[in-house]
Amino acid sequence: MQPKLTLVGAGPGDGELITLKGIRALRQANVVLYDDLANDTLLEFAPEQALKIYVGKRAGKASFTQTEINELIVSLSQEYGHIVRLKGGDPYVFGRGYEECAYVRQYGIDCEVVPGVSSSIAVPASQGIPVTCRGISESFWVITGTTRNGELSDDLRLAVQSKATVVVLMGLSKVEEICAMYCQAGRSHLPMAVVQNGTRADEQCVVGQVWNIPQLVAQQGVGAPAVLIIGEVASLHPSYVAECLRSSCEVIGL
Amino acid sequence: MQPKLTLVGAGPGDGELITLKGIRALRQANVVLYDDLANDTLLEFAPEQALKIYVGKRAGKASFTQTEINELIVSLSQEYGHIVRLKGGDPYVFGRGYEECAYVRQYGIDCEVVPGVSSSIAVPASQGIPVTCRGISESFWVITGTTRNGELSDDLRLAVQSKATVVVLMGLSKVEEICAMYCQAGRSHLPMAVVQNGTRADEQCVVGQVWNIPQLVAQQGVGAPAVLIIGEVASLHPSYVAECLRSSCEVIGL
Repeated sequence: MQPKLTLVGAGPGDGELITLKGIRALRQANVVLYDDLANDTLLEFAPEQALKIYVGKRAGKASFTQTEINELIVSLSQEYGHIVRLKGGDPYVFGRGYEECAYVRQYGIDCEVVPGVSSSIAVPASQGIPVTCRGISESFWVITGTTRNGELSDDLRLAVQSKATVVVLMGLSKVEEICAMYCQAGRSHLPMAVVQNGTRADEQCVVGQVWNIPQLVAQQGVGAPAVLIIGEVASLHPSYVAECLRSSCEVIGL
Repeated sequence: MQPKLTLVGAGPGDGELITLKGIRALRQANVVLYDDLANDTLLEFAPEQALKIYVGKRAGKASFTQTEINELIVSLSQEYGHIVRLKGGDPYVFGRGYEECAYVRQYGIDCEVVPGVSSSIAVPASQGIPVTCRGISESFWVITGTTRNGELSDDLRLAVQSKATVVVLMGLSKVEEICAMYCQAGRSHLPMAVVQNGTRADEQCVVGQVWNIPQLVAQQGVGAPAVLIIGEVASLHPSYVAECLRSSCEVIGL
């Protein structure tokens, strides 16, 4: 049994947004370790007899710590051979994918990475928002809302000054703080969207401007997992103008 | 014949990095319009009788202007029905995808976007470089090296101050200018990689630091299409230390 790890990007939620290469890796899996964000239907690509182990967080509670997952990969690969680690989005975008690779390589275990469609690009697109657009945005900046120390990333302090489209992943619980930073920088009227469960059937979106988004998110009960999109491109959302007027009236009580 | 446009992200070059959804769209295509960066093998997913039209740039010369492509999509979809526009990487990352969508919608033509694996993430990954890594990088910033007016994007001026992993697409011809900006900001020793034809069989990579990369790129004859990766994460490249020493000696003539 040759131990091997393949990190596979499962894409943003829609089960058809996995790559051919990802499917081929799953077909050759002896064990699949999967997270929440990976669509469950993808497990069907793995052989019926393959072990399928859930290692995500349910109700905010991790079933395994990162150390336990790392150790699990090593011991399972030594016992069963080929382990596929199925991660939502792309394995190298805030997925701790590199840590898992580096850990198993210490044991001489081969590790391959199959990139995936990242939520940071595909979730805005599913709402008709391009992260870049000639004449409007020449760059996009993807930032985590959840840093190791629980604070907002310093990168956000610079991002509020930039003309980049800013995409925040895992940042819904910090939405008030993030919007306040933009307002303090005099950018309260910047278009913004918040998308929950992007690319899934139960996708939900709030469109507005930085000043009213926190209230709209609260009123409309938008929950995690959500992607925040901040920048002029958010105004390209097909119902931006109507939504903005409606939601502004709602917020000021008209 | 119901006219329809589907923009499909072809992925970064490796023919297996297309999504299942992209393959399904190709299978239902009456016409495929494709660019250089899309892997030619992907055309085989389209029906044999479907028209396949190359609309990219050969030897730097565009076969069609953007206006011509827009008009082609409208006229072909009215004549043949379902047009698939196959674009390298993701259609909404510097692909002028939004412009094509917006144009055809003016004619009442339905437009769907199938996101793809972006080179901005997958090309660094193919060299073992994660765009984010806990404790090293909390964000990544993707910037075009080719703006409408031919100048460097203003976003780069801010990016050189940031701790983000900076990924520049279509920026090889500006590599000297970009590196000079980092050096002027006192960041000449920042790790950097340049990857040509990432995820393809003929992939080539140069690893070094901002101060010596322009010379290494010239010496090793790295050409377009290339992705520039600037930031601490580039030091995670498996041969970074050895390469850095070797290349530094080369540059200073030891």
